[in-house]
Amino acid sequence: MLKPYGDRVVIELVQEAPQTRGGIVLPDSAKEKPVRGKVVAVGSGKVLDNGTRVPVEVKEGDVVVFAKYGGTTIEIEGTEYTILNERDILAVVE
Amino acid sequence: MLKPYGDRVVIELVQEAPQTRGGIVLPDSAKEKPVRGKVVAVGSGKVLDNGTRVPVEVKEGDVVVFAKYGGTTIEIEGTEYTILNERDILAVVE
Amino acid sequence: MLKPYGDRVVIELVQEAPQTRGGIVLPDSAKEKPVRGKVVAVGSGKVLDNGTRVPVEVKEGDVVVFAKYGGTTIEIEGTEYTILNERDILAVVE
Amino acid sequence: MLKPYGDRVVIELVQEAPQTRGGIVLPDSAKEKPVRGKVVAVGSGKVLDNGTRVPVEVKEGDVVVFAKYGGTTIEIEGTEYTILNERDILAVVE
Amino acid sequence: MLKPYGDRVVIELVQEAPQTRGGIVLPDSAKEKPVRGKVVAVGSGKVLDNGTRVPVEVKEGDVVVFAKYGGTTIEIEGTEYTILNERDILAVVE
Amino acid sequence: MLKPYGDRVVIELVQEAPQTRGGIVLPDSAKEKPVRGKVVAVGSGKVLDNGTRVPVEVKEGDVVVFAKYGGTTIEIEGTEYTILNERDILAVVE
Amino acid sequence: MLKPYGDRVVIELVQEAPQTRGGIVLPDSAKEKPVRGKVVAVGSGKVLDNGTRVPVEVKEGDVVVFAKYGGTTIEIEGTEYTILNERDILAVVE
Repeated sequence: MLKPYGDRVVIELVQEAPQTRGGIVLPDSAKEKPVRGKVVAVGSGKVLDNGTRVPVEVKEGDVVVFAKYGGTTIEIEGTEYTILNERDILAVVE
Repeated sequence: MLKPYGDRVVIELVQEAPQTRGGIVLPDSAKEKPVRGKVVAVGSGKVLDNGTRVPVEVKEGDVVVFAKYGGTTIEIEGTEYTILNERDILAVVE
Repeated sequence: MLKPYGDRVVIELVQEAPQTRGGIVLPDSAKEKPVRGKVVAVGSGKVLDNGTRVPVEVKEGDVVVFAKYGGTTIEIEGTEYTILNERDILAVVE
Repeated sequence: MLKPYGDRVVIELVQEAPQTRGGIVLPDSAKEKPVRGKVVAVGSGKVLDNGTRVPVEVKEGDVVVFAKYGGTTIEIEGTEYTILNERDILAVVE
Repeated sequence: MLKPYGDRVVIELVQEAPQTRGGIVLPDSAKEKPVRGKVVAVGSGKVLDNGTRVPVEVKEGDVVVFAKYGGTTIEIEGTEYTILNERDILAVVE
Repeated sequence: MLKPYGDRVVIELVQEAPQTRGGIVLPDSAKEKPVRGKVVAVGSGKVLDNGTRVPVEVKEGDVVVFAKYGGTTIEIEGTEYTILNERDILAVVE
Repeated sequence: MLKPYGDRVVIELVQEAPQTRGGIVLPDSAKEKPVRGKVVAVGSGKVLDNGTRVPVEVKEGDVVVFAKYGGTTIEIEGTEYTILNERDILAVVE
């Protein structure tokens, strides 16, 4: 498996049915269609100017919404993952 | 529902009638037409260089004016929301 | 009314007669014609890297000169206001 | 009169005769023809990241050379002034 | 051999068979095809604003995934190496 | 004379014979032909984020090599000077 | 000779035979062909935001690999030198 570097996370994309009761619909009109995925691994966090390391806010299993353009796609054993900087996560789906 | 990440907020757009008594009219001439919306969720705040976390200044229920270009639009159960960085909020409507 | 966010201010534009005895004339030749207006509301100030909040230097009632391109225009009950970052204020008219 | 904001200064342009004994000639070939002017007002200075305010180095009456592109021109009672960031001052004429 | 400078690392590229059991396939569609390689040397780390030196997180022998555009390629005794800034490492393959 | 502002210096250009024994030849092929000059005045230095002022490293009389594009040219009593930011000095000729 | 300024170094270019047993071959395909050279002088180092001066990591006599685009070329007594910012050094050849 992948251990993301620094303040990055690895996300497994969740395929959305266009219209579902309670599902999240990501309108095409948006500047960059945000996508939904599940966090499968988190990095060691970000080192600040004063040397402190700030842990990543999300944890494995969280479902998040993020801007697709920010990540790098990679396929492992047939599954597509996105490696993403923590700051490109828009929100956690509760 | 969505829990915005870091110093972001989730806003539900308020549809403006073009001309209303006391309503806010956002002239098209403006560089980027600001829009009005109600805050429905706020993130955990921004982490500064020295590690302190500064909470988001607005709270759920506040009505705010913001620059539309800054946010990412998302639709949940038929309602359109904008996920926005706190710094793109121009003002709170009192 | 509007409560500006962070280190922003709300300014009501003052319409200038082209040539007035003590009035300020803003020549078109200038890169971006600065305009004159009265401060009607100030934000909570700017949060520095070390967490301290620096209050906005101007106060309600001050007449200021600023670069028009910096602000966002908004109309409330027929009056045009500009929401502006504090750093786009050029000077206070004494 | 104008009270410049933060680390800005207000300068009254000094009109140069093309060639004068001891006068400063600003060759057109220069990337941006620097100009000469007298400081008529200084701002409160610059607030650093740690909250300290650093006063502006020049004082009223100093004659300075600066890059014209940096300032904003404004006319008050027939006299042309430039509002300029302190960092665009190149040198003081002693 | 090469001792990378500051917060850089030297990576020996690992040639990927297009489809292998358990192998990582890097889809061409990705904005910039990430590549895989083995760390052969690490620099002394990054000096922060307060003077502390933060060691590089990976060590010799780690297999990493990184964005190809970030590095500089160099060939030594017939083997191709990439010299890369630590921040361009996306993840470590565990 | 000119007193340079902050971390600037004033340099008097030294005209180079194309080929001189021991002279420095500045090949045209270089991205921006560096030039040679003598320091005639130095500013008060640079104010850091924590308020400390770091004096300029060169002193009057030093001969330096610098990138021409960085400075602003000015002529005083028939002599051409360049006003330059300290960081555009490449080296001191010993 | 030249004393480089601040965190710069002076490097004497080492001319590479295209293919040598242990020599480093710098493939043209690379974004910017890195080159090899010997350090002949180092500057006083970099001043950080808190005022501390961090010495340059390499020393006279070290052979380094660097990105050619970063430096400024200068010829002294028939020998070509490059004046380079420390951060443009990719690695030291051990």
